[in-house]
Amino acid sequence: MSSNSPIRLALFGAGRIGQVHAHNIAASPETELVVIADPFIEGAQKLADATSAEAVSSPEEVFSRDDIDGVVIGSPTSTHVDLITRAVEKGLAVLCEKPIDLDIETVRACHNAIGDRSSQVMLGFNRRFDPSFAAVQRRVVEGEIGTLEQVVIISRDPAPAPRDYIAGSGGIFRDMTIHDLDMARFFVPDIVEVTASGSNVFSEEIASFNDYDSAVVTLRGSKGELVNIVNSRHCAFGYDQRLEAFGEGGMLTASNVGPTTVKKFSRTGTELGDPHMPFFLERYAQAYLAELETFANGIRNKEPFSPNFEDGVIALELANAAVESAASGRAISVAPIAAKA
Amino acid sequence: MSSNSPIRLALFGAGRIGQVHAHNIAASPETELVVIADPFIEGAQKLADATSAEAVSSPEEVFSRDDIDGVVIGSPTSTHVDLITRAVEKGLAVLCEKPIDLDIETVRACHNAIGDRSSQVMLGFNRRFDPSFAAVQRRVVEGEIGTLEQVVIISRDPAPAPRDYIAGSGGIFRDMTIHDLDMARFFVPDIVEVTASGSNVFSEEIASFNDYDSAVVTLRGSKGELVNIVNSRHCAFGYDQRLEAFGEGGMLTASNVGPTTVKKFSRTGTELGDPHMPFFLERYAQAYLAELETFANGIRNKEPFSPNFEDGVIALELANAAVESAASGRAISVAPIAAKA
Amino acid sequence: MSSNSPIRLALFGAGRIGQVHAHNIAASPETELVVIADPFIEGAQKLADATSAEAVSSPEEVFSRDDIDGVVIGSPTSTHVDLITRAVEKGLAVLCEKPIDLDIETVRACHNAIGDRSSQVMLGFNRRFDPSFAAVQRRVVEGEIGTLEQVVIISRDPAPAPRDYIAGSGGIFRDMTIHDLDMARFFVPDIVEVTASGSNVFSEEIASFNDYDSAVVTLRGSKGELVNIVNSRHCAFGYDQRLEAFGEGGMLTASNVGPTTVKKFSRTGTELGDPHMPFFLERYAQAYLAELETFANGIRNKEPFSPNFEDGVIALELANAAVESAASGRAISVAPIAAKA
Amino acid sequence: MSSNSPIRLALFGAGRIGQVHAHNIAASPETELVVIADPFIEGAQKLADATSAEAVSSPEEVFSRDDIDGVVIGSPTSTHVDLITRAVEKGLAVLCEKPIDLDIETVRACHNAIGDRSSQVMLGFNRRFDPSFAAVQRRVVEGEIGTLEQVVIISRDPAPAPRDYIAGSGGIFRDMTIHDLDMARFFVPDIVEVTASGSNVFSEEIASFNDYDSAVVTLRGSKGELVNIVNSRHCAFGYDQRLEAFGEGGMLTASNVGPTTVKKFSRTGTELGDPHMPFFLERYAQAYLAELETFANGIRNKEPFSPNFEDGVIALELANAAVESAASGRAISVAPIAAKA
Repeated sequence: MSSNSPIRLALFGAGRIGQVHAHNIAASPETELVVIADPFIEGAQKLADATSAEAVSSPEEVFSRDDIDGVVIGSPTSTHVDLITRAVEKGLAVLCEKPIDLDIETVRACHNAIGDRSSQVMLGFNRRFDPSFAAVQRRVVEGEIGTLEQVVIISRDPAPAPRDYIAGSGGIFRDMTIHDLDMARFFVPDIVEVTASGSNVFSEEIASFNDYDSAVVTLRGSKGELVNIVNSRHCAFGYDQRLEAFGEGGMLTASNVGPTTVKKFSRTGTELGDPHMPFFLERYAQAYLAELETFANGIRNKEPFSPNFEDGVIALELANAAVESAASGRAISVAPIAAKA
Repeated sequence: MSSNSPIRLALFGAGRIGQVHAHNIAASPETELVVIADPFIEGAQKLADATSAEAVSSPEEVFSRDDIDGVVIGSPTSTHVDLITRAVEKGLAVLCEKPIDLDIETVRACHNAIGDRSSQVMLGFNRRFDPSFAAVQRRVVEGEIGTLEQVVIISRDPAPAPRDYIAGSGGIFRDMTIHDLDMARFFVPDIVEVTASGSNVFSEEIASFNDYDSAVVTLRGSKGELVNIVNSRHCAFGYDQRLEAFGEGGMLTASNVGPTTVKKFSRTGTELGDPHMPFFLERYAQAYLAELETFANGIRNKEPFSPNFEDGVIALELANAAVESAASGRAISVAPIAAKA
Repeated sequence: MSSNSPIRLALFGAGRIGQVHAHNIAASPETELVVIADPFIEGAQKLADATSAEAVSSPEEVFSRDDIDGVVIGSPTSTHVDLITRAVEKGLAVLCEKPIDLDIETVRACHNAIGDRSSQVMLGFNRRFDPSFAAVQRRVVEGEIGTLEQVVIISRDPAPAPRDYIAGSGGIFRDMTIHDLDMARFFVPDIVEVTASGSNVFSEEIASFNDYDSAVVTLRGSKGELVNIVNSRHCAFGYDQRLEAFGEGGMLTASNVGPTTVKKFSRTGTELGDPHMPFFLERYAQAYLAELETFANGIRNKEPFSPNFEDGVIALELANAAVESAASGRAISVAPIAAKA
Repeated sequence: MSSNSPIRLALFGAGRIGQVHAHNIAASPETELVVIADPFIEGAQKLADATSAEAVSSPEEVFSRDDIDGVVIGSPTSTHVDLITRAVEKGLAVLCEKPIDLDIETVRACHNAIGDRSSQVMLGFNRRFDPSFAAVQRRVVEGEIGTLEQVVIISRDPAPAPRDYIAGSGGIFRDMTIHDLDMARFFVPDIVEVTASGSNVFSEEIASFNDYDSAVVTLRGSKGELVNIVNSRHCAFGYDQRLEAFGEGGMLTASNVGPTTVKKFSRTGTELGDPHMPFFLERYAQAYLAELETFANGIRNKEPFSPNFEDGVIALELANAAVESAASGRAISVAPIAAKA
């Protein structure tokens, strides 16, 4: 392709996250949305109409084309491994939503199957592209607070997902905490120990699936760094996504985002701010844009993707370790990256 | 036009503000950028290339067309009256950057010339569309703080404009304060008195043009409301744009915006935040988008524009009153809107 | 007196402010409360019992003693001039609540009468001793924001004083704004021009006394500094006392104080803080302590007092200029300090 | 004693914390400092002179008196059990600094020895009396955020204690975390499980004592509440003491305290606040006052003390469980209060 022509992309999945990607791809001068594939063809067609793309119902209609540079996978988790495998075999770049799969053996089999071509895959850990989280991480890496010693991640969803979603989610650690586990690795790539506690404090429904509605995870890095993750499946005041990075020279924090800077002062109190952004589509709108831009730049400049396939594998391994720790009451050792290489 | 087809727009001016409008028009599914006119044709062509529009060098090449619904005027102030007049005569909707003209007699002559067609004109007082300022105003109108009694507007530019710009700017009140005067009227439409003080504290260059580098303006509304505007032509920490609305039941404030929520804590202090957005292009990026959307909706739904031509006239009259007050040391009475009707 | 023995003080007035001073004097190891004088002897006796002091009903019973180093005057304004005069004639140090008197001629006559002994008098402009305001002023003087260019002072009382108090208060500028005028001079000692606007937006009672319930004052310093004061006689969210000092190198702000750092996040909003301190006794509790300490240190070390008698005179002159400006709609020139010397 | 006369107190220990108590006792009209006992008699005498008390070198000289109502124990930890035992046998009320002892067997033996008289003992967990923490706890108890689900406690000391102190401290969990364990129980009295991780990231000296410089503790309450404690023995930006209580209806947070509200805005950033209070003497100055007042009121009104001896026992048991968990990598079950009764 010419260095000036837009990166041509196909999209799998016309659901909620697919729509985010479709609109971002269509709006960017760097990318062009060629085709949207979804077995629910009406949804694909509607989204395609809004984004000047073509709609198809099967992956074959995507992979048979010769005019695309990469694919964005926003279809259900169960389709990820198959689509990744076929895409990389065709030499296409892949941006795949997390997780690769809920089953680590399936993930590893995929990894083995695609081999070095895993370098064509970028994982959709969107939070790494949030302007505030990204700025904290960059400044930590640049040494602004010296040696990093502790990270605290607060992450609470506004409300539990529907019953059916919870049932097939793989549990809080694989479904929800996995984002925070990757965020932990954004700061401390080499995790060597996982300790987790789950609890059921508000949802009998979630308990009925032998799943937790609340959790705390402590990670230990290879240099002794301690990372603390606090999760809840509900939050009265909206989507709660904060972190603090603490080092020998100080601390950098990133907090929640509201739609305005307005504060109210009245008889009942002072500095009352807007409710936070309701959920990830709003809170991470800028992150999804930046993620796509990074993907397109990676394709154009033939640079390695980050986060990559291995980051997806490790996040799932950490989630599995958390499951085991919460069940057994024991700290679980995990192999550092160096040992995997 | 069909209710579904995009609003087709022409743009005058391919400079800094023209570029903002061009990209916003091109990116919105609601609008289509047809043609860009600028006597500096190379600039027009470059911008047209980036936005899939046509470039022309003269207004005639715009007004001779039959395929546009409205024009956006981002060319130099001296061209505004002519372009407004020609556009409304052709039945086109107009979104014109402030001010209409620096000379009130010219403005009034234009007003007389176009008569009722002034209703086709929307004035580009972009700050009314800032999400935070707009939210405060809406909540005041909805009665959230009861009767409005005081408004305080802090408005400081990051650095003085270049010498040539200052020379032709019409002075701080007509060039810079005029935005704040309109913001005052966003909250208190009927102003009856203007008191202003100008000062020269840092720029000999500005003083050499008999202009002020700092100013304070106090406005009185027809119900006794007091509005306070504080201006400076420079500001070490960036573009400073804040306001507070104070009523019998409480206060609503809107403050500055930064690129992230990151705070730093170190030996030298705590809660150090990002620098503010550097200037209006960044701070009011969302406002320009919302302004354009409002313009397009007004055209589509044949609704009256706000802010309109009269708002532009009144803002200039208030600026002139401020000039007179600062020079004479006297409070200047101005006619309320009712008296003008 | 020995350099180690406490400073022995007499107090005039056992009312609200007298009680503050009495308890502060009694609690400090640096000071001793010897006697409290108040014609309402029951109040004086009760306060004296609580502070291990003696109670008397007449000033004579204070001035006839030989065992006191200074007097604190917290009695009604009409008694100030007489008590100041008698105290300085006896060689006593004086800490007098503002104002010296509501009538400038009476104040000047007192000034002439006591001559150089005015140096024995400290004026009770308590806000200069507020930790936050004092820190801002100190840092401005130390050059932290370069040349000072603008000061914005927001000052709102929680609720109007009772009818009788308002009737004899001398009006908003002499009674309430006078504190802000002194605060302005804390930052910009040499004021050369006063412009004021008064308004009646909520209280017919205050209007019935030809007084304003709201006001804005703009002051010009001898170097072109602009100071802006915004006043209201009521405030739904408590005692509102803030300021910002703006200089060529940046800005320092001081904001309101609450009893705790607690913030609430709920469905209705985020970061809801405590109501502010209700009024001056609570907000300026630390300031009154620091003021007394400064007074005691001044006596002990024979250092000049600040703020002093002249500061009281000038604040009243500025208040009178504000009255004149608000009535006439004209900026009023006032003599700078240099001209007075 | 008469209901009006002050509570008469003896103080053991004239060191840093003894000095805080001595000055608070002396300054309060509710209490009177009778005698200070310290084998380092010069220190005791100097403190006694400053607080109008008597100085003695031995406990006998305190316990032989008949004119005291209670004792405040601020002497070294190793003396606590003996002094508590002797004081309660004499029928005196006791306010004892934490911990009762570093050895749980010694503590239990003391508990057995004094039996029901443990009700005469109040434990000096000062943080419960911090205005912000106390307000959060009161509002949680009042139901303002519904069922409590999670508590996050951040607690970092400004710098490690001296080598000798660390050597005899009992380790981070018994010496430092113990305060946070009690704070956890302030919100969730019934803890049933302790999971802890310790780490060495900055201090070889601390590591040389087989102690940790950083730690994370997760507690589980009997209703499934999860409490998270994050500790560090150093903190570049001062004493870091924050918490958040999260419930089904929202969240209440308490943050750090600075000496002023001043914020600085400059080229290098915005909203730079004061450094936090440096350490516990400054941060908890109000808490020590409120603690003493509570102790005096408890004596006067013969009300049960809180926190009490049992709270001291449980905090140490939790600290021991943390030690065990950190060493073994296992979650440690602890008996809930109900099981102890």
